[in-house]
Amino acid sequence: MFENSERTEISKLGEFGLIKHITQKIKLNHPETIKGVGDDAAVLNYKKHTLISTDMLVEGIHFDLTYTPLKHLGYKSVVVNVSDICAMNGIAKHITVSIGISNRFSLEAVEEFYSGVLLACEKYKIDLIGGDTSSTPGGMFISITVLGEIEPTQITYRNGANENDLICVTGDLGAAYMGLQILEREKSVYKSNPAIQPDLEGKDYILERQLKPEARTDMVQVLSKLKIVPTAMIDISDGLASELMHIAEQSGLGCVIYEDKLPIDPLTYETAREFKLDPTTCLLSGGEDYELLFTIQQKHFEAIKNIKEISIIGHITEANDTCHLISKGGQKHKITAQGWNSFANN
Amino acid sequence: MFENSERTEISKLGEFGLIKHITQKIKLNHPETIKGVGDDAAVLNYKKHTLISTDMLVEGIHFDLTYTPLKHLGYKSVVVNVSDICAMNGIAKHITVSIGISNRFSLEAVEEFYSGVLLACEKYKIDLIGGDTSSTPGGMFISITVLGEIEPTQITYRNGANENDLICVTGDLGAAYMGLQILEREKSVYKSNPAIQPDLEGKDYILERQLKPEARTDMVQVLSKLKIVPTAMIDISDGLASELMHIAEQSGLGCVIYEDKLPIDPLTYETAREFKLDPTTCLLSGGEDYELLFTIQQKHFEAIKNIKEISIIGHITEANDTCHLISKGGQKHKITAQGWNSFANN
Repeated sequence: MFENSERTEISKLGEFGLIKHITQKIKLNHPETIKGVGDDAAVLNYKKHTLISTDMLVEGIHFDLTYTPLKHLGYKSVVVNVSDICAMNGIAKHITVSIGISNRFSLEAVEEFYSGVLLACEKYKIDLIGGDTSSTPGGMFISITVLGEIEPTQITYRNGANENDLICVTGDLGAAYMGLQILEREKSVYKSNPAIQPDLEGKDYILERQLKPEARTDMVQVLSKLKIVPTAMIDISDGLASELMHIAEQSGLGCVIYEDKLPIDPLTYETAREFKLDPTTCLLSGGEDYELLFTIQQKHFEAIKNIKEISIIGHITEANDTCHLISKGGQKHKITAQGWNSFANN
Repeated sequence: MFENSERTEISKLGEFGLIKHITQKIKLNHPETIKGVGDDAAVLNYKKHTLISTDMLVEGIHFDLTYTPLKHLGYKSVVVNVSDICAMNGIAKHITVSIGISNRFSLEAVEEFYSGVLLACEKYKIDLIGGDTSSTPGGMFISITVLGEIEPTQITYRNGANENDLICVTGDLGAAYMGLQILEREKSVYKSNPAIQPDLEGKDYILERQLKPEARTDMVQVLSKLKIVPTAMIDISDGLASELMHIAEQSGLGCVIYEDKLPIDPLTYETAREFKLDPTTCLLSGGEDYELLFTIQQKHFEAIKNIKEISIIGHITEANDTCHLISKGGQKHKITAQGWNSFANN
């Protein structure tokens, strides 16, 4: 899917040449950035508390270059990290990007990847301040560290939920997972007959949710404007069920959510049906939505109930209770984490 | 070289289980650590400026598991990052460690790696506050981000050297490179005949310099006690020649160093001779010493001249001059960077 007419070998530039080439396009915007790329370390001047999170993406485990454009991959690598800062209720400001690539990558391919990184940096107002590059004997991998800033009173951990708190989720769920199913299906069709063109028609929304997700910095701002500090928050990377259990377990409480309250896009629903999958299961267990799951005090119900893009899906229950789903038919099901495990023997 | 009687498969624990297992041994010491591992991001409270640097180590490129014990690898991974903070004249305080490992690794192997990481954290008083783990389809890789703190007036960049500044280096150079030559030689002997035991006798010092280097936090403290802020500083990871050129180029100046002032351990010298290599070339171009190279104003000469472990090797010269070495015979040679390039086609 990704082609270049030009091809410059990275070995020609060497590591220093490559870094010089990549970094010349970096623009720094934050007053907190005292020194960016180019020395032994970057220098920052944060006035509030510092948030730091790191994420890794490995070829063949987290992404498949047969259907992932490198620009999208660069964009997504930044977004998944920014999302972790959102999950703390903070503002992401700085990022370091390290990549390992094999010799099969040309300079133009690396440029594509970084054009996606820089696009995300522009959109999310983030300064790229460091990183590392290396060749690898095998596949590609990406390691990103993001830093953000937060007022101490705004910090939102996973463990602060209280009994009767409302459980909220932003956007809609399960779409990224269904996008992945489409891409995997078309990959296997292509493998069996390369002459067949991929059938992606009408699937734009769920494909974009998989290939080019967004972090909900907008929702962090909405909550801030409403002066609501969630009691607990997490971003949905492994699936709603798994994240719900993190909040409940770490808060020492249980929870109940309602199937008919769960936000799902019609295209996600239809595509799940097309694949003969249960839409609710896809929504609960499909990961990579990068939406925010959070709990708020009941007193905020009026303020939040009409906010577009926020769904109230249930509430926190008493200690030692577990997590339950009330189905559309009124039955109570225990939720088990079907979170994603990169070490599983598939 | 590395064997375990027990073998627990990582796939049994899964990613969450593995993280839980690793993180239970972490001890947090710094008052700046508000929240360590266990949420979407760690929370820090730095009062001064923040330093941040990141480094990657890739199997088959930066390390060879046939002769690198995993515990040493974990230790070294931390040290090379701490060294970058030293090179800014700062104090390393926090670290995140991400690793990619294949299924051939057992839980016990991962524990060995982390025991080295934690040993270094203990020695250098660093809090491990985050990271990521993933399986990989191929080799192992490590990505570490280190954070440190520094008073704005103490920050030492690479570009601050002035004409006539003295050029200083800590410790001795070239040892890590000669240690690597020994290990590579014994590896090829072993490959041709596995019955032959490796001949490492008497080479302890240079092997340790390669396998278990240290960061010069002690030298940062010495300078601080003397109230000397270097005008420029860098750590020697790619080799003295390459680092000298970084300081000279970024400062827009030249430099001259004297062969007879260069610090070399007798064992490094002898081993270079044994390999029929020129000791000075090994010292200039061999990397991974993790010593500090810095420049100071001439007025500090008296304060520094008798400091054990600091050698004054030359001085900074006028703009647009290049870097030169005055040989023991009095000849002037232009220095070219023989720094290490992971993208070179070997």
